[in-house]
Amino acid sequence: MRDRITESFARQGLMVTLGATLDHIGDGIVRVVADVRPETAQQHGVGHAGLTFALADSAAGYAALTILSEGAEVVTSEFRISLLAPARGRLLAEGRVVRPGRRLVAVAADVWGGDDRGGRVHVATALGTMVPVGAG
Amino acid sequence: MRDRITESFARQGLMVTLGATLDHIGDGIVRVVADVRPETAQQHGVGHAGLTFALADSAAGYAALTILSEGAEVVTSEFRISLLAPARGRLLAEGRVVRPGRRLVAVAADVWGGDDRGGRVHVATALGTMVPVGAG
Amino acid sequence: MRDRITESFARQGLMVTLGATLDHIGDGIVRVVADVRPETAQQHGVGHAGLTFALADSAAGYAALTILSEGAEVVTSEFRISLLAPARGRLLAEGRVVRPGRRLVAVAADVWGGDDRGGRVHVATALGTMVPVGAG
Amino acid sequence: MRDRITESFARQGLMVTLGATLDHIGDGIVRVVADVRPETAQQHGVGHAGLTFALADSAAGYAALTILSEGAEVVTSEFRISLLAPARGRLLAEGRVVRPGRRLVAVAADVWGGDDRGGRVHVATALGTMVPVGAG
Repeated sequence: MRDRITESFARQGLMVTLGATLDHIGDGIVRVVADVRPETAQQHGVGHAGLTFALADSAAGYAALTILSEGAEVVTSEFRISLLAPARGRLLAEGRVVRPGRRLVAVAADVWGGDDRGGRVHVATALGTMVPVGAG
Repeated sequence: MRDRITESFARQGLMVTLGATLDHIGDGIVRVVADVRPETAQQHGVGHAGLTFALADSAAGYAALTILSEGAEVVTSEFRISLLAPARGRLLAEGRVVRPGRRLVAVAADVWGGDDRGGRVHVATALGTMVPVGAG
Repeated sequence: MRDRITESFARQGLMVTLGATLDHIGDGIVRVVADVRPETAQQHGVGHAGLTFALADSAAGYAALTILSEGAEVVTSEFRISLLAPARGRLLAEGRVVRPGRRLVAVAADVWGGDDRGGRVHVATALGTMVPVGAG
Repeated sequence: MRDRITESFARQGLMVTLGATLDHIGDGIVRVVADVRPETAQQHGVGHAGLTFALADSAAGYAALTILSEGAEVVTSEFRISLLAPARGRLLAEGRVVRPGRRLVAVAADVWGGDDRGGRVHVATALGTMVPVGAG
């Protein structure tokens, strides 16, 4: 399962472009990390909402994949994100399975970033729906 | 207003990274376009949900900016996107103001892509909330 | 199809409790109406968000049902509503199919109400996902 | 604070109509309970999504109120709910403040119900945005 997810992640062009890497793969939970860089920021140097969303969506999608059978893939059906604080420093996105299902997998995600004093900030929280789509 | 948005957009590192450009700036409506490329795709070459989201969010944010006074900025408070079809070819994201407000601007966005036969496909539809944040 | 929806609606206890009635049944579109009453209001006499949501959700669910085969039922998988203005007077909720699907039906809904001068107000806009669940 | 919320809740016509009562009022957290009844069910006797939403929305709104100053009120700006399982028996909705703010309060809510064997079922999870609106 770990290999399958690692290989799939490596093939996601956008994750490579965003400088994202897999931080943790567990049963129903996946963490993705990426540093906010000028090329992934908005006009004031803070991480773009699109960066935060992409990390949260990928972490949640792979979290769903951890509970599906070999060869399965998932696509995001819908995703709702609340942006709670500016995204700065190293972003950690954690995706979790909220409710597994054969046709739908309800997922949640949270993203944390850093502040000026080395602390952690809750950057975003999200809910979504992933749909298994048979063999990849 | 057009210059302000064009300059702001040009400073959004992520939009440059995603190869996105402004297609239209109107009163309460902005369109952004970008081609799906390997570096913005998921593992099967289709546009990543993060790409579709980023284009929709930026188009909606700038649509909100068109109705605000000089010097204002907006940040995304929350954004909910439904992914309706695979994102292929040239993506066109249209952001619209649904309801202007002093403290909150309700926005909507739709994203269209191409299909194999040169037709248009409704790739995503979204609703969100933008928050004006005073001077940039 | 019309009879099936009319009978199903009549069996929805909450719709009866809220004083809601079917206003229009079309192909992929259903409208539901209800007056804001003290028993469906919040503490200031304005329609409760729960009333607006229930009308939008039911209209969208029945809109999805109009495109499904005989004997099918739908359940709401997720629903996201933006409340744009206070809900007053007679509320009209329109549900529409955004994208039909065998496993998921993407829906949208809007709710309009009245103002003090006999005009119409856009009270809410929503997106959701309905899931067909075989025979009722 | 407790009195203010208890009085406000008692004036919410819809909560009375739905048979909802306040179960717990804490700092940034409020719980509301209600039994699924025929008059709040959908066509198959299961709690209507509108019931689940209304309980979650009210619990989250009052959770936000617990952290605001005397005389403040909140209105729901947007609310996104994922329905995870059929709503049966006694429903318990818990609303929590995710991030307090002067202009916006990010909230979350979960709803649990009962099953046939006396167990608890996670019926719904939700995220929303509440807006403080000055004096009531």
